[in-house]
This record gives sequence, structure tokens and C-alpha cells, in this order.
Amino acid sequence: MDVRSLKEKLLADYEGALDLDGVNGGRLAERLAVLSEIGRTEDGGVNRPGFSMEEKRAKQQVMEWMTEAGFEVRQDGAGNVIGRLAGKTEGAAFAAGSHVDSVPNGGNFDGPLGVLTALEVAEAWKETGFVPPVPYEVLVFSEEEGSRFGAGILGSQAMTGDLDREVVESLTDKEGRSFAEVIEAVGSSAESFFKAARDLDEIGFYAEVHIEQGKLLEEADRPAGIVKGIAGPAWLDVVFRGSAGHAGNTPMAGRRDPLVAAGRFVSEVSSLPAAFSETAVATVGRLNVSPNGTNVIPEQVELTVDIRDLDKASRDGLVDKVRETAQRCAAERGVNVDLRLASSIDPVPVSEVVRAELREVFGELDLEVMELMSGAGHDAMILGRHVPMAMIFVQSKGGVSHNPAEWSDLTDCLHGVHLLKKFAERQMEKMAGE
Amino acid sequence: MDVRSLKEKLLADYEGALDLDGVNGGRLAERLAVLSEIGRTEDGGVNRPGFSMEEKRAKQQVMEWMTEAGFEVRQDGAGNVIGRLAGKTEGAAFAAGSHVDSVPNGGNFDGPLGVLTALEVAEAWKETGFVPPVPYEVLVFSEEEGSRFGAGILGSQAMTGDLDREVVESLTDKEGRSFAEVIEAVGSSAESFFKAARDLDEIGFYAEVHIEQGKLLEEADRPAGIVKGIAGPAWLDVVFRGSAGHAGNTPMAGRRDPLVAAGRFVSEVSSLPAAFSETAVATVGRLNVSPNGTNVIPEQVELTVDIRDLDKASRDGLVDKVRETAQRCAAERGVNVDLRLASSIDPVPVSEVVRAELREVFGELDLEVMELMSGAGHDAMILGRHVPMAMIFVQSKGGVSHNPAEWSDLTDCLHGVHLLKKFAERQMEKMAGE
Repeated sequence: MDVRSLKEKLLADYEGALDLDGVNGGRLAERLAVLSEIGRTEDGGVNRPGFSMEEKRAKQQVMEWMTEAGFEVRQDGAGNVIGRLAGKTEGAAFAAGSHVDSVPNGGNFDGPLGVLTALEVAEAWKETGFVPPVPYEVLVFSEEEGSRFGAGILGSQAMTGDLDREVVESLTDKEGRSFAEVIEAVGSSAESFFKAARDLDEIGFYAEVHIEQGKLLEEADRPAGIVKGIAGPAWLDVVFRGSAGHAGNTPMAGRRDPLVAAGRFVSEVSSLPAAFSETAVATVGRLNVSPNGTNVIPEQVELTVDIRDLDKASRDGLVDKVRETAQRCAAERGVNVDLRLASSIDPVPVSEVVRAELREVFGELDLEVMELMSGAGHDAMILGRHVPMAMIFVQSKGGVSHNPAEWSDLTDCLHGVHLLKKFAERQMEKMAGE
Repeated sequence: MDVRSLKEKLLADYEGALDLDGVNGGRLAERLAVLSEIGRTEDGGVNRPGFSMEEKRAKQQVMEWMTEAGFEVRQDGAGNVIGRLAGKTEGAAFAAGSHVDSVPNGGNFDGPLGVLTALEVAEAWKETGFVPPVPYEVLVFSEEEGSRFGAGILGSQAMTGDLDREVVESLTDKEGRSFAEVIEAVGSSAESFFKAARDLDEIGFYAEVHIEQGKLLEEADRPAGIVKGIAGPAWLDVVFRGSAGHAGNTPMAGRRDPLVAAGRFVSEVSSLPAAFSETAVATVGRLNVSPNGTNVIPEQVELTVDIRDLDKASRDGLVDKVRETAQRCAAERGVNVDLRLASSIDPVPVSEVVRAELREVFGELDLEVMELMSGAGHDAMILGRHVPMAMIFVQSKGGVSHNPAEWSDLTDCLHGVHLLKKFAERQMEKMAGE
């Protein structure tokens, strides 16, 4: 897939119906295609790890577009791009954005869509001569995906000052390069990185458009949806330990097979979330058996349960229930179990006030409202802990993401632009009046 | 562990109580220790892959001992050692033996014990001036473990003529060397290998002493046991395929998670054998999840079920039940399942006549009888398809095998010698009278 083909593919089904109020589908398609060239893979995906030359080049491209669009542009010590468009008044800005780094051989929409829809809103204003009532910022956060160090959302956390310096400085990438080496290679320094924390009073609101990375909008045939909140994942590491033995010479009675306990556990875990809430989820995605030989009863099975919900109390209740289930499954089979909460991030809800306004905006644009949870973390999860936050999901074909096959129709992307534009206009009006 | 320490360790608990009728515990301990030096590993185990220089040296050592003991010794084209001790009459021999190859970093008893107990029986006869009524053979089979090509019991199958030449000639080892290259490196040729098939009328009976590789004798506090038969393993490859998705963005309802189906399946499989027989076993030892990421609902789980029983009809009935269970578990979770019987070896029972004679021999030696299944395959499984066969298990500490920690007390090993000796004497008497 080359630039031409991504752009052509985006435009193939699009007849210009949403080229309204200064918004231009051809421009958005062109820009998605240009970014898809940077770090492009054979499969038509992209490799733009955080703090790579490819991520840097993608940011530089966005900075050029920002400058042409009349933004004042700078980068902070974490490499975050901050484009500021002056408003009728000074003061706190309405900010929107996302990231341009990718997972290895990732897709062309996860991240770039949020940056380019935010930019397209400003392009539309420029075309119609609209001057925003308060400053408007487009933000491009560094290293959201975590491909570099296995620790993501670094840029946004640097901006909000949420990072533990000691932890960050101890990070090393897959090639064994230290955090300092990596950050210096892209022209910054560890020292500057930790000076990226902003006075968050400068940001009055943060909004992010992102592909859904799930199938709910597609199944409901909606171009876009309102994010109710970002579920905080808790990762519970579980290790079942039993007794290895020869598969032929060990009678069934008296076996202490950790895979039998783990199997029962995985099967039970899938039925637990329903008792907590409609949004609760629990998943075992990673499971390793030792020694993993066909004719050897396993000695150990280690796995991680990924547990999420919008509501922290509900999520934590589910974590407790999963723990109990692991202990019971182990006890029933006479095996030992170790449980360790490897990480736990608090959910970030979107306020009811913001959701009500988003519903109105959907109505004004004649779009049916669908509200859904974001199960994945985003830069909006970090910003949302400090400033009012909104997030809009755009339909994602087949729910495929982190993959070259990731796809959103241009029409759905443009609905995202119009929703963000109208929401920003209303919100900025309110901000100017305060 | 050096020669001295293995010998000393074996002799540490032994006060000579079984040095009777020409049997010599010191000699057996010395010989186990000498073999443990060939291919010795840091952990005190051995590396003697089939068709390696280490296996060849171990065979040469045994051949020296055989010659000293009055055997006529030769090797066939498969490298099998055939030591023949003349009897009072010509005709079919009573044969006993095992192998001297090992798994990587294997133990010092699996194989060598069968060869050296068979040799010790002849040494005892030599000391007491006993001349066997029919010829007595000690056999050392090549490549029993399968470490070289992933296909074991090659030497015994070459001797019985059970090998498919095309299959064997297509084997390659881990270093990519062809079967012909490997066999030539130890001084034979593919041509000679396939001429190893003997006229099996030369062997009137085959007996093998082997460590149990399980814990049943230890748990029952018996030095040795009678093998009822060798369970034939059937290996059923099972692949569950579902839909991958983001662990956070995919609601529980409508998931098609193959690990949930596989977990339920593994858990149910463990309870199926009891309905078939006391000896039936079914084990999932190997299970791989794809893509195996903490926050990704798995797309595929592939595993193998190892299913064994003494009775073929019971074993095959259990295979069918396991298949049904896989299909039901898959259907319940809306995932697909592929089933493939990767291999199926018929069980080899030990005849009731032979078991009755073994029970009498146990009684004569004041040993309580315990009969048990061999879940693992052995050279006796191959010979037993063609000639009458007996197998005696010696207690194995903790059931540990294929590991440097493999251990059998010298007293238990010597009970194995006396059992084999008395059984051989009775059997040869019968053979001479026929």
C-alpha cells in the first residue's frame, strides 16, 4: 500500500457529503496517507516506535502543517508537540490531539487520526474565517504505545508531571539502550524530559478522537460513539505450581497437575465479570506451561489476568473474586498458587456533564448516540486525571487494531472531525464566558 | 558426582545382604559408576544421545565386560550389541537387556540398569559354575530415547524389522545431519542398518529390567514390581481457533475466546479416564497460546492430549471421549476446533502366563507382589510384539527420571538382578524341555 493507494482507498467510497463548514475529506485522506509513508512496512502498516527517527519525522511533518495553518508550534523536552492557535481571548486553551508513534507493524489510524482530526478542525476554521473564542491547541504526545520501553503513555505523563523520575531513568529498550541514550538520540535529554511538566491551568479542556479498537460501533452501525470512561486495567499475575511427572507412568489419582487447575480457572474467570457490571471484563491472554512437553505432566503454569471496569469499586471487587477463584481452583486440585497484583491503574470516568454535551452535539449532527467504554488506555486517560476530558470513538472495521489491517472509513473519520469541531466550538464558547 | 561418588553413594546404604548366589553388589555399583562417566554432565547426569560417540563408547565398555564374562559378542548394522552365552543346548535364546543411550542430561539408571542387571545374572552364573540350559543373550539396543531424531526405539525396531526404510532415511537430527550421515559417523551405514533384522526364532523370550519412572513402587514400599503391560500412547493434536480482540475493548458477551474453551477442555479431560479403567490416563502437557499477549484475547490455542491405557479398546474409547469433549467445549464457546490423531501405538500386554510365573518368582524371593502398568515405551514393547516378553520395574526415588536426580537404591537394583536371574533360570528350563 503506497501513499496513493491509501489516499485512493480512503476516497474510493467517499462522495464529498461531509465536505461542509470548511472540512475537507481530501485533505484528511492526503495527510493520513503522508503519515503512512513514514516508517511504512511491507504489509502497508507502520513501524514508528516512540523516540525513534520515524516518530520524530512524523511529528516534524505535523509541525509543518500546523505552522501553515497558523499555529505557534513548539516541542517540550519530552518531544511532545504543542501547537497553539490564538483565540479571541487569552487564557486556558481547549486542547485536542493524540500520538503518532505506533506498535511494531501497526496500523495507520491509531494515533494519527486523533492528531489529524484535531488539525482538520483548525483548517476548517481557517477556511471559514472562524476565530476560536479561546486558544486552541493541537497536542502530539510522544511514546503512547509503549513499544520502546514496554511502558507507554510517557509523553502525556511527562506533560502532566505524573512520572516517577527514578522509574523512567531505569528503563532500557530491547536493544539494551538506556532511557538517557534513547532520548538523546532524538535530540533531547533526560534533564529536559523532566522539565516537560506544564502548568495545567494552561489547558482548560482536553478532547481526543480515536479509533474504537473494538467492534461495538460497527455492530451497531454507528460512525462514532461517546466514550463513557477509560477502564483502568488491573493485571493479576497467577502462578500455579504442582508436581511434574511422566504422562504415562503417573496414575490420574494423586496427580497435582497445575494445568488442570489453570484450565478450570481460565474457564471460570470468563463467567465472573457479568456479576459485577455490563462493562467489566476479565481476560487471560498470556499463559505459559512448563516444561511444556507432550508426555510430561506440567510442573508450573503462569498466566496474567487482565481485569477492567469503568468503576474502580466494581473493578476491584472483580479482582478479589478472581483471586478467590484462583485459590479455590488450586485447592481443588492440590496445587499451590501465587497471586501478585502486577499493576493497577484507576479508571478515568468522563463526567456526566461532558457526556450530556456530547449527546447534544451528536443530535445536532443527526447522529444516533451510542456510549461505550474505552477498555484501552489513551493519552486522554492521563490528561483526564487533571483537566475535564472528552473522548470520541470512530468506528473501526472488525475491531482490528495494532495491525496493518486497521481501517476506518473516511466518512466515519469525517464524522469524528465534525463532532470534535462542534463540541470544541460549544466548549470554547463556555470557556470564554467563564 | 564422579565415579567414586556414584559407586560410594550406591554402596553407602548397602550391607551386602543380597550378595548371594554369585550376585555381587559391588560389581553392579562399579559398572553403573563406570558408565556414568561416559558423557557425564556437570550435574552428575549423562549426555549419551543415540548414535553418538558417547553411546558407542558405552557399548564398547559393555562389550568388554561381556567378553570377559565368556560371551560371544557382535554388533549388528544398527549398532545393537548382541552378546551370546552358550547354553547346554543350541536353539532359541533367553534374551535380556535394554539400552545405554540417554536423553540430554539424563540419569544414570534409565537403560544401563537393564543392561547391567542382565550382565550381572551371567556373572553370577559364572561364579557358581551354572551353565544355562539354553543360550542366554544380553542385548544393548541403539537409540531408545529418541534424542537424536525425535524418533526413539530405533535399534530394537531395526532388530525386529519393524521400521519403514523411507521414513527412517528421511530423518534429520537437530544439527540437520541426515540419517545416513549420522549412522556413518558411528561406523555403520544405512544399508547395513536395514540388514539388522534378525530371524526372531533365535529369541525364545525377552526380559527387561527397568526403573519404574513413576512413584507407585516407592509409595507402596516395594523394591520391584511386575509390569502388566506397556500402555500404547495415542497423541491427539487439538487446535481451538476463535477471534482475537483487545482485552479492554471487547465486551464479555459475544467473545469467542479459544483459551476459555481450551481451559474447560483441559479441566474436563482430567476426569475422563476414571470411567474407562484404573490404568487409563490422559494428560495435556503441552499447550501454546497465540498471540500470547496479556491484553489480547487469544486467537488460537494448540495443545496435545497424551492418552494411554493397557487395553487398546479402552484406550481408543477414551480417545473418542476426548474428541467429543473437545467438540462440545468448542461449541459451547462458539470457537472452532481441529482434531488430528498425530500418533497411536498399540498397547503391548504381558501374558497372564508370564505374570503368573513372575508372581511365583517374587514369592520364592520373599517379595510382595505388585503389578503395574508401564506408561512409557521401552525396547520390550517392540520385542513383545514378536516374542514372549516380561518386564520388571525397580523402584525409582520420587519417580524422577530423564534427569540427573534419577535414583534407585542398590538394594532395589539387586532385587531386580535376583528376580531376573530366577525368572530366567525357570524360563530357560522350560525352553530346554520344549
